[in-house]
Order: sequence, then structure tokens, then C-alpha cells
Amino acid sequence: MLNQGRLSRAQERMREQGIDAYMILTHDDYIYFFGEVRHQPRAIIPANGPPIIITFFGEEEEVKRSLGVDDARVFGTVGQQIKDVVGAMRQMSDGKETLRVGVQMWFNTPAFLLTMFQRANPQIEVVDIARVMDALRMIKDDEEVELMSNAAHIARVGIETAANVLRPGITENEVGAEIEYAMRKAGGSGVATPVFVNSGVRSCWLHGTATDKVVEAGDLVVVDVVPRFRGYCANLTRTFVLGPPNAKQHKLFETYRDAQAAGIAAVRPGIRNREIDAAALQVFEAAGYGDRYVPGISHSIGLDFEEAPRPTIHPADSRIELREGMMLTVGHSVLSVPGVGGVRIEDTFQLKAGRAQPLVDCDVDFELSA
Amino acid sequence: MLNQGRLSRAQERMREQGIDAYMILTHDDYIYFFGEVRHQPRAIIPANGPPIIITFFGEEEEVKRSLGVDDARVFGTVGQQIKDVVGAMRQMSDGKETLRVGVQMWFNTPAFLLTMFQRANPQIEVVDIARVMDALRMIKDDEEVELMSNAAHIARVGIETAANVLRPGITENEVGAEIEYAMRKAGGSGVATPVFVNSGVRSCWLHGTATDKVVEAGDLVVVDVVPRFRGYCANLTRTFVLGPPNAKQHKLFETYRDAQAAGIAAVRPGIRNREIDAAALQVFEAAGYGDRYVPGISHSIGLDFEEAPRPTIHPADSRIELREGMMLTVGHSVLSVPGVGGVRIEDTFQLKAGRAQPLVDCDVDFELSA
Repeated sequence: MLNQGRLSRAQERMREQGIDAYMILTHDDYIYFFGEVRHQPRAIIPANGPPIIITFFGEEEEVKRSLGVDDARVFGTVGQQIKDVVGAMRQMSDGKETLRVGVQMWFNTPAFLLTMFQRANPQIEVVDIARVMDALRMIKDDEEVELMSNAAHIARVGIETAANVLRPGITENEVGAEIEYAMRKAGGSGVATPVFVNSGVRSCWLHGTATDKVVEAGDLVVVDVVPRFRGYCANLTRTFVLGPPNAKQHKLFETYRDAQAAGIAAVRPGIRNREIDAAALQVFEAAGYGDRYVPGISHSIGLDFEEAPRPTIHPADSRIELREGMMLTVGHSVLSVPGVGGVRIEDTFQLKAGRAQPLVDCDVDFELSA
Repeated sequence: MLNQGRLSRAQERMREQGIDAYMILTHDDYIYFFGEVRHQPRAIIPANGPPIIITFFGEEEEVKRSLGVDDARVFGTVGQQIKDVVGAMRQMSDGKETLRVGVQMWFNTPAFLLTMFQRANPQIEVVDIARVMDALRMIKDDEEVELMSNAAHIARVGIETAANVLRPGITENEVGAEIEYAMRKAGGSGVATPVFVNSGVRSCWLHGTATDKVVEAGDLVVVDVVPRFRGYCANLTRTFVLGPPNAKQHKLFETYRDAQAAGIAAVRPGIRNREIDAAALQVFEAAGYGDRYVPGISHSIGLDFEEAPRPTIHPADSRIELREGMMLTVGHSVLSVPGVGGVRIEDTFQLKAGRAQPLVDCDVDFELSA
């Protein structure tokens, strides 16, 4: 159902910024306004008045009923879908020479969709809708906190599953399969990013996935999960070693654990992500790993796996002030030392009562039996 | 390892078209040239000379060794990564006023990455690399056929699992969990699009996903799977009914089955996708469903779940001539009749010896026990 409060707040910000409409092309903002998961959704939020849904003819009645929206423009072909959008945009132009329309630019909007939209609507000035949506989505309401807590509990099931199945001889892909299955059985609706099972030399990677590589005794294994629960994400990462760690692996792990703790302790309203980085960096430097530090140890999270502030992708975001009600992860940066391995420990927190409070506690051992 | 043949063919086309370099931002073309799955890869293919890899410092030695590439520019921060790209582009400009650089525009390139690239490299004229890559990727070599056949066999495991677990009372999400788990246990490395388990009223949807909805007796259930095997996809869709179908459901199913068969029979070198559509449409019209027909019953597939020709997204592609060695699906369009339900039956074919040959046979019953 259409969330009237969120709609009003977005429209107020759109009017303040002279944005005439928001063209929704992504599932995350669709869920934010309408509370419903839909693949490839299209909707228009005008600065004034009710939203317009662009929908396939076979979904019309159901969409109107379930969203509580009267204005649905239907299509049965790609051409008609484009015409529906163009028609709605012309209708909103209503004599204006240019229409300023916001579009989301992040991972969920493919480049061709943006260029196709611009080409079909030459009278439109496209603006990044982040200036409207970021401020709204940064602060989570109670309903969102509840959904993300569910996602965090599902993430814990994923990490505990990894701890149970990881042993020499299993492939990363098999571990990934067990993790994803366990998370879905626990109520998750899939993952926002592929589960990382980065073992051995692959623990040094910046990003990851699960491959056919066989996990071996002595490997460091970084396991990163971002399950969704009704659209909302939580992020949990743990590093394991198969069998007793050597001295260098042990030092890497301890350093990361202390750096994450320092980062978490730094979190309070009014600081910026770069201060979390600074607190963690101090620990890395003291251990002699200063030159291995990857800035961006913390990012926000919600309907997207990384959302504003996301200095991990957009460095300028490290200057955004943190506020009560934000959700953020600490532990995003890999500490990568080729020849030794890589370590990450990441949890998701709510900034509440002045400090970072984990959505879930997840205590698993670093050392697993080999 | 770098595939020299593919590199040479791409570079030849780039030179023919006056494109100075291809900036790879997506995993599919990275796999195409280097045979390796990597999340968020970055590489540059100049029109002449060896490729340049942009890589995280923790992956440098491994990347050079495993790809057989000497020129790797490393980074530890997002800022340095951008500088590496800008530096390589300037080096290639070498006195030229404008550098023409190709970028892929499809689902794997997020809008912000394109705008960020353009902003960081104002001297560059960005062009759509489809004009180089589509022609190469359209025709699959033996290695690709082998990988896609594996993916198709994994897809069959997914559909058979659906037939085994679907029963009244199970949720779509639980069915999706079982399908994905079985496909990964069978060697799959995840899915290219979320598994659709569209039941009841949701079978009428154009797109889909698996939700918390409980599957009920009498529901039509559309199950669509696109597993990956080492990056390559295959697509298989079946529709089930829980318990005996009513007369209208029965007619929908039979019509779709006949329309798919007509589409398959139309496939031969030299025709275009629109002729496959025309053959299927004739069957739909004869059954009185002409006005429910969604054009684009066929699309190509490979490293991407829909690749050129993809009239399903880009209507003009329905005029591309089909050739031996292409892979295509037939059965993409939902036949959606609200009040009755929706049906789809889709298989993946190789265009070989003048006709469409299925990558795998998948015989499951339409009617399951309720």
C-alpha cells in the first residue's frame, strides 16, 4: 500500500528543489513508497498529486488494488510502455518548456535505461534524485528497523552455516550454496550481492564471489553475506581459518578485530564516516599495516546494500554527518596482505541512543577444525 | 587466461569503427576476454596492443599470472582507481584531441558508473560498444556451447525440483529456495535473474520473483530459471497447475505449447526474431488470444540473460538476421489472462544445422497433484 507519509515528505523535498517529478525505475524506491517487491517496476511521483503507475496489462487490477493507486497506465509492448511514460511526462509538462525529472543513478539503474529515457523525453532535464531520496532513506523508521533486524538474524544464520560446513575439501561454491539455502529457509528472499566465500589467495580480493576453488587447510576464508528480507538488507562478514592460524594470520585477525572495535567506538551522532576510518586506521598503523588500509570501512545500508553515506563508492560521502536513526556497517575494508591472506569482520548497526548498536550478535570462532 | 582470438577479433572491429579503446566495466565481457569471473572488474582493451587491467593491490600478482597480462595498474582507494583509468586514457590519447571509448550500456553497467567515467574523462567521446561486441558474442564457439549446455542441464534440475516440491501450502519463496539450492548442488554458480515462482494471480505478471505468497490448489504457477555455469546462462520456464486444470487453464496451456512449437519450427538461418513472433502470434490469434500477445517471444542468451538480438528490451533487434551458431530462447512472452492465469514455456536452443536444437530436453507434467 502507498505510504502517504513517505510520499508527502518526498514531494515536499521535490518542490523545495524545483524537481517536477521522480521517475521510479528501481525496486528499492518502489518498495520505499509502495511497500511491495516488484521486478522492473515503473512509477512516477509528481511533485504534487497522486502517483502514476506504469504497469503491464495483466497486472493492472491487482496493482491498483494492492497499492491503493487509481492512476495506472497499462502496456503490452515495450513501445507502449515508453509511450505511457512519454505521455505522462507531456501531461505533467503542461505548457512548461523544460520538465525537471529525477532519476536514481545507483546500481539498480542500468545505463541504457537512463539514455533511453532521456532520448524518449528530449524536453526533460534529468537530475539525480539522490538529493531528494538520500535524506529520507538515511533515517530508518520503526518498520524499517524491524525489517532490517529480521535481515540481520537471517545473515547470522548464513554465517553460522558457513562455520558449520567449512572444512578442507569443500568448494567455495558448495559453501555458498549451503549459506544461501539456510538463509532462505530462515525467511530471506535472496541476496542483495553474491555471497562471498573468498578462500586462500582469494581472501585478498577487494570484492568476491564463490567459485569452484577447493578450500584448503590453512586458508583464510572471508565470508560476506547480504540477505534481503522483504527488500531490506543486512550485512555480516566473518573471517575463518581452517586449522590453527600461523602467527601472521593471527596478527591480521587480531588487528582487524581491534580496528573494527575502534571504528564502532567512534560512532556517535555528529561525526562523519571519515572519523570512523581514522579510528580504525590508527589501529592498522600501530600494527604496521597503515599502507594496506582501504578507506571506507563504514557505509550505510537499507533497501540497497550500500546507500548514502557510501564513501566506499562515493568518497565525498565521508563528509556527511551521522545522525540518530541511521543504519551503518563497520568492517567493510579488506585488510589484504598477499602471501598471508585477507581479513574482514563486518556488522550492521543502528545509530541509537548516541551509539552504534548491533542489529544482531554473531559470535563464531575464527579457527575452525581442519 | 586472455583469449587472444577474441581479443584480435574485437580489436579489428574497433579499428574498423574508429573506436580507440573499450573500457570494460562488466563481468560478462571480462569473462569473454579473460575467461575468469570477477566482481566489479575493470580492464581496458585498446584498439592496438595488449589489454590493461585496473586491479586492487591485493590482487595484482594473482591477476597478472592468471590472466597472462603484464600491464596492471593497481589501486587501494576509489580515488586511485579513477586516477588509474584517467591516466591510462590520457596515455592512449597521445596528442589526439578526442578519444573514442566504448562502454557497455546494458543491465550490468549502472548509470552512475557511466556518468562518473564521463565526468572523470571529459576529453572522451563515449560510444556504445554494442556495435563491436554484439556481432562477436552473438555467435557462440564450441567452448561457449559446452558451458551453456552445462547451464541448461542445471536449469533442468531446477525445473524438476519445482515439479517435486510444488504443492498447496508451500510458499513461492520456499520453492525458490529449493530450486536455487538444487541448481547450485548441480554445479551452478547462482542465478542471472531471480528465480520466478509466480503463482495464482501472480502468474499473470510480466516479470516475477518468489514471494511469501502461499501456493494454492488450482493455481497456475510459472517457474522461470536462469542459472549460471562459469558465467554462462541458460533459460528454462515451465508452467504448472496444482490439481486438475479448469477448461480455461487447459486451453491457455495448450495454446502456449502450440505457439512455442510454431515459434521453434520457424527458426532457421536468415529469418529474424519478428518472424518467430509472427508464427507464434498466428496460434494465439486462432485461439482468440491475439490481443493478449506480448511481442518478443524470442531473445538471444549467453553471458547475459538477454543479449543481442533482444527484441524483448530493444524492439529494433527484431530485425537482426539469425545465423548459425546463435543461441536463442523461444517462449519468453507471458500469455496473461487475468481471472484465468498466466502461462509461459521457454527453452534455450542452439541454431545448428539449419534449425533450433534444444540444449536440453525437459519433460515435466503440466498437472501436479494438489
